[in-house]
Formats: sequence, structure tokens, C-alpha cells
Amino acid sequence: MDFKEQVKQVKAASPKLAASTEEMRNRALLAVRDALLAGKEAVFEANQEDLAQAARDRIAAPILKRLRFDEAKLHDVAAGIQDLVNLPDPLFCTQLKRELDAGLVLERVTCPIGVVGVIFEARPDALVQISALCIKSGNCVILKGGSEALKTNKALFQIINKAVLEAGLPENCMMQLEARSEIKELLECQGSVDLLIPRGSNAFVQYIMDNTKIPVMGHADGICHIYVDADADLKKAVPVIFDAKTQYVSACNAVETLLVHKEIAGRLLPELKEALDQKSVEIRGTKEVAEVISCKEATKEDDTAEYLDYILSVKTVDSVEEAIDHINRYGSHHTDCIITENDETAEKFMNLVDSAGVYRNCSTRFADGYRYGFGAEVGISTGKIHARGPVGLEGLVSYKYKLTGDGHIVEDYASGKKSFHFKEL
Amino acid sequence: MDFKEQVKQVKAASPKLAASTEEMRNRALLAVRDALLAGKEAVFEANQEDLAQAARDRIAAPILKRLRFDEAKLHDVAAGIQDLVNLPDPLFCTQLKRELDAGLVLERVTCPIGVVGVIFEARPDALVQISALCIKSGNCVILKGGSEALKTNKALFQIINKAVLEAGLPENCMMQLEARSEIKELLECQGSVDLLIPRGSNAFVQYIMDNTKIPVMGHADGICHIYVDADADLKKAVPVIFDAKTQYVSACNAVETLLVHKEIAGRLLPELKEALDQKSVEIRGTKEVAEVISCKEATKEDDTAEYLDYILSVKTVDSVEEAIDHINRYGSHHTDCIITENDETAEKFMNLVDSAGVYRNCSTRFADGYRYGFGAEVGISTGKIHARGPVGLEGLVSYKYKLTGDGHIVEDYASGKKSFHFKEL
Repeated sequence: MDFKEQVKQVKAASPKLAASTEEMRNRALLAVRDALLAGKEAVFEANQEDLAQAARDRIAAPILKRLRFDEAKLHDVAAGIQDLVNLPDPLFCTQLKRELDAGLVLERVTCPIGVVGVIFEARPDALVQISALCIKSGNCVILKGGSEALKTNKALFQIINKAVLEAGLPENCMMQLEARSEIKELLECQGSVDLLIPRGSNAFVQYIMDNTKIPVMGHADGICHIYVDADADLKKAVPVIFDAKTQYVSACNAVETLLVHKEIAGRLLPELKEALDQKSVEIRGTKEVAEVISCKEATKEDDTAEYLDYILSVKTVDSVEEAIDHINRYGSHHTDCIITENDETAEKFMNLVDSAGVYRNCSTRFADGYRYGFGAEVGISTGKIHARGPVGLEGLVSYKYKLTGDGHIVEDYASGKKSFHFKEL
Repeated sequence: MDFKEQVKQVKAASPKLAASTEEMRNRALLAVRDALLAGKEAVFEANQEDLAQAARDRIAAPILKRLRFDEAKLHDVAAGIQDLVNLPDPLFCTQLKRELDAGLVLERVTCPIGVVGVIFEARPDALVQISALCIKSGNCVILKGGSEALKTNKALFQIINKAVLEAGLPENCMMQLEARSEIKELLECQGSVDLLIPRGSNAFVQYIMDNTKIPVMGHADGICHIYVDADADLKKAVPVIFDAKTQYVSACNAVETLLVHKEIAGRLLPELKEALDQKSVEIRGTKEVAEVISCKEATKEDDTAEYLDYILSVKTVDSVEEAIDHINRYGSHHTDCIITENDETAEKFMNLVDSAGVYRNCSTRFADGYRYGFGAEVGISTGKIHARGPVGLEGLVSYKYKLTGDGHIVEDYASGKKSFHFKEL
């Protein structure tokens, strides 16, 4: 069958899955968990093959680590599924119930998005998590995992798909892509796919955003800032900057640019440099910074650089307003932080910085669905439409309006014969 | 100044407007209302010129009617502004407040989208309504109205913009486009414009959706269906269909396709034809329909036609399932209705039809923000991302996460030294 026809079959399954009860979806989740535990040997075996191939291909160590799927990871995803089962149903929630006139009742009820396409990195546990989130939220899912995990993903998908169908969810509610070439075809499936969630490198996410008419949720850049105000407590500033820069440099929520109020630069920078030197962080500073500490000279490009590395761009500013302007202009609206003891300055910063996360006195690395207590994260969005910041289950949910009448017609209201009374129920 | 620079200035104003208090925005709204009432003569005069030009251009009567801006329309928009002032502030609402750990507090707070571009039909009252909605919700707005209303729009914009600035809202928080050629430039302003709301013909909305990377809220098609079930009450069915088809044929929520259960076709169709004949509605039926009433022969194209005219496509189906499949396949996910006295069939239809509005026993023409009691409508969305169906103020609102700590770092949680306790506040 041709690719677009297959995707259309997934679309055709989506209203059926949308109408499934909470009990059915939770039962399917538990069936998936049990099937994964029962079928783990086949998955581990496939994973060994992927790991061996990756070793032959001289894949870098951090990628190998994410590629590995072992007892510990299986335990984590099984526990994650149980957590999801325990969460309240995101569907069939009445968000509004209003009597427009006698016998004419409007309800707004949550429903799934429909068909979600997720393109994700070579991390087999991500396949399980995404599938589970989609089952819980009643969304059909089209999965494309990183090619290094091909065999593991295939084994996992077979187990999950079989369990889901046996538990009674509709045929074709899940689909897996294997070839990278299929991504291009997927991008052309507007009308069948309701939302795309790409994860991976900036360049890749940008490519997806630029080449499809399907709505995309995600973020291409993570250029996060910390602004150290004149009223900062250095005992907080230094550890927070150190953590935000070095705790995991390749994360999108790591800090890339530090803005320092000129009044505090002389005290902060030497102490900060001493800390960052422990991790050999390269500092790229403006000439004002170079007057205080030794550093590499920053260029215009450093204003918009996402290093994802042990590099930090440092700049002095004259005021919180200048810091805000810089962040709104050069940032990526992901997560930006102020270090200050001054409540008024903090409030100004948090209101005026136009980012998904605006922080005070804590590391930008907290920008994460798990750390926010969402239980699971679909992705992080820097867009302001639909979902923003770390996105949990609710990012996979839409709503519909149900209107029930008894032969009501608009002409009666247009002619003035009847009028609405809008009573909340 | 070049166009994109001007739009960038609007973007630069958006964080300031986002930080404005409810009191400031309501004061600005009242100032706009007062200025419109005080300056009405200039507006009426400009409108006379537009009307005279439209008459010379032999513009159709319904467009002339929408183009007219007189005392009655002024009264309506002034009352609409007062209603908006009375609505609760859509901004600074705390949607979530959670202590992640001692001293580390997460808040999710509503904020404006940022910069909204609205391209609308030649209806001067729309300019006032859209401006007022954007002021209330703290959004900067770029307005482009239909060219037939050029002079009226110019007069209205001058009054509104002046009142807004005098009331203390930030410079450049509003902008008006005058030339049609500027639309193309606006479509390229991704990064400066956060959301586009096009209103107008299908072809135009589709053109916008196809030619921009900015998120678009709206709908290109309104192919609405009514399904008359075997258990329908004909005393409801006939007036509802008559209203949905004829009350205002050029509206997107008018019915275009009627699906009739074969068991009831023999009773419904003759009675319905008699009613529709009063308004000379052309019926395009399948051969099963032609066996019962005289009608034009329907072709494949009629399945997906949005007539916006006194034409109705009619088809028989064997079951509610067939009706649902037809609607999900050929419809535009706008508003679809079932006529039935059977609760179970109604529930099935309303759960399985994947549309923004799913109705029972009432006219599809109710799909409208005012009729839903939203006070004002930004537009109707057939997308499922962000906003769906008639969109009121809340469609112009996003949110941000505020995280306040006291020097908290992620490493303490990654190493197990500390752990989250997630307490709702």
C-alpha cells in the first residue's frame, strides 16, 4: 500500500480512538507494560545488534549511552506507564457548560488532537514514552525514531502495537516509519496528520518547520540567558551560573549568554571565572569583560550562538532594561533568568522578558516537564500558540463544542422572537 | 522607514503592552470609545466617500451594507467596547502554582500572544472590534481591512491609535496597512508577528495559509453537514434544515450537504422540498434522492462543495456510521449536526464526528462567538491546535512559566542530594 494511503488509514482510526473510554485506554497501557516485561529478551537482543552496529560505526559515547536499552531503562518506562495510568483522564473533561436559551445547551469538551507525528532521537525509551502518552490522550501516533535504534524500535513497536490491538484499541491507531526517506512523505500529509513534534538538532527541527504545512510543536533554538543584576547575591549567582552552564552542556536549557550589570561585574566575574575554570569553560567576553578577567574576544555572532558546549558568552549591561532588550532581541524565547534580591527588578524582568520560562535565582536547567511535575514531557515549545514551555499530556489535547437543542433555529434569534439568556450550568 | 523595520517596532512594543495593567488597558478602551463618539463626524464623512466610490464601482448590495458605518453601527461598537471593559482580565491569571521543592515555586501565568496580524473584510466595525479585543488582551495588532473601506478605516484608526497612546499604552502598539501589496510583506514577518488571523473568502485564507511561516488561525472552508437519522422528528428536521440553509446562505456555518437515513428519506424529502422551494433552493441529489423528489443530479464535486448559495447537496446513507464516515472524509471539520430523538445515536455521532462543533437538533448557524456567549469573536478556527471553533478573547492569550528559587541548582536533584516534592499552592 502506498505511504499516504497508510497514513490516511491512521487518520480514519483517529475518531474511533478519540471515542474510546478511559478504562479502555488505561487497560491498553497496562497491557503494553506487561507485554514489554514479558517480551524483554527480544528487545534486549535487538538492542545488542543496534549497539554492535553503532560501535562498528564509531558512534560517539553519549549517543551510545542513550541508545542502550537495558533492565534499568525497561524498569523506568514500565514505572512511567504506571504513572500515566494513575493520571486523570485528559479527555471528556467539560471545560464549559452553558445554557444559551431554554433547551439549548452548549458544552466544551476535551478531545484528542487526532493524529500526531513524532520524530525523535535514537533513544528507544522515548518510543515507549511517546506511545504511552498518545494512548493515554487518545491520539493516533506515527513514530519515527533515530536510525541507530532501528532494530530496537522495531522490536518495541511490534510488542506495543500488538498489545494495544489485543486490548481493543482500533486497528491502525499506531504506525512506525523505518526509512529516513519517509519523513519527507510524512511532511506532505497535511489533512491526515494534525500535529508534528520533531525532536533533535536545531537544524533538523528547523528543516521540519520550513518544509511542512502541518502545525509543528517544538523549538529549534535554545539560547538561554542569565542576567546578574546589580542587587544580586553572588553566593547564589555563581553556583546557579555554574549549574546552568555545566550541568549538561548539550541541553537546550543550558545557559549560553551571561549579561552582567556593570556595577557588579568587578566582583562577580573573577569569582565566576575561578568556578568555570574547573570545567575549562571558554569565556567569550566584550571589551568591558576583558577589562576584568582574561577571556576570548566576543564577536557579533556570539549574541545569537547556541554553543551546546563548554563556552559562555559574557556581556555587561547598564540596566535591567538593557538586559531585557537584549534577551527579547537575540534570545530564542526559551528560558531566561535574573539573579537579584530586588523584588521590583525581578518583577519587571519576569513581566517584560517574552520567553516560555522566566526565572529568578535558579538554574535554567529546571526547564523540563519532569522537573515541573508534569509526569511526562512531550517536548518543549518556544512557540506561543497552543502550548508553550515544557509540554505534558495537555499539549496533546484539543476540544470540541457540543450543542444540543430541540429544533432551535437561528432565525428566531435574528428576528428578535427569542433571545439568549446565557446561564452557566 | 522600511516595512519590516516598522513591524519590528511593533514587536519591540509588545513586551511593554504585555506588562500593562488591567486598569491601563480598560482606561484605554474607554478612551477609544469616547474618542470614537466625539470624532464620529469625520468617520461618517470618510465612510460616505467610500460608499460613493463603491457605488461608482458597482459593488454588490450585501458588501455595501457591510461597508456602511452609521450611528447604529457606532452605537453597537461603543456598546461592545463597554462589554469588553466589563469582562475579567484575560492576563495575569495564575493557571498553576506549585512548589517543586522548599523555596522553589513554579507559576503558570497567562500573557498575550504578542503581535497579531488581522486581515479582514471591508467592514469598518470589524476594525474597531478587533482593535478593542487586542487592547483588552494586551496584544499589539497589525490591521489590514478590505480596500473598499480604505478611507473609513483610516479615519477610525487615527482616532483609535491617538486615544490609545494618550491613554498611556506604548508607542507602536498598533499599525495599519493600507496597500494590498503590504500583505505579502506581512506574510514574511515571521519572528516579528506571532499569529495571523485572516478573514474573508476561502481562496484568500488558503492563500495566506500557503504563503507564510507565521502560525495562522482561521478556516478556509465551511462545508457543514446535517444528518437526518432514522429516529428523527420531522417537525424539528425541516425547520432546522431550512434555517441552516437559508437564514444566511453566504455564511461559513450554513449547511451545504444533507445526509438522510434511507428509512426516513421517503417521509422527509417531499416535505423538505416544499419548504426549500419557498426560497428557490436548488437540490442536487443522488439517484436515491431523485427517486423520491425531483432534483438536479449530484456529481462527485458536490461532496466537497461550499456553495455559499441557495444550493443543497442531498445524499442518502444506510446508517449513522456511514454519515460519520462521509462527514469526516469530505467535511471541513467546522460544524456538523445530527437530527435524532435517539440519545445513543446522538452520542455516537457527537463523539465520532471530528469537527469543532457537533450539534444535535439545532441549526448549524449557531456556530458563532456571540451566540455562544463569548461577547466577541476573533474568528472561527477549524484547526485543532491552540483554538478551535468560535474564538473569543482566550484565543489571543498564551502563558509563561515563572520559576522563583533561592539559588536552586539542578545538580542537587540529579545527584540525589535533594528531591522534588511537588506541592500545589
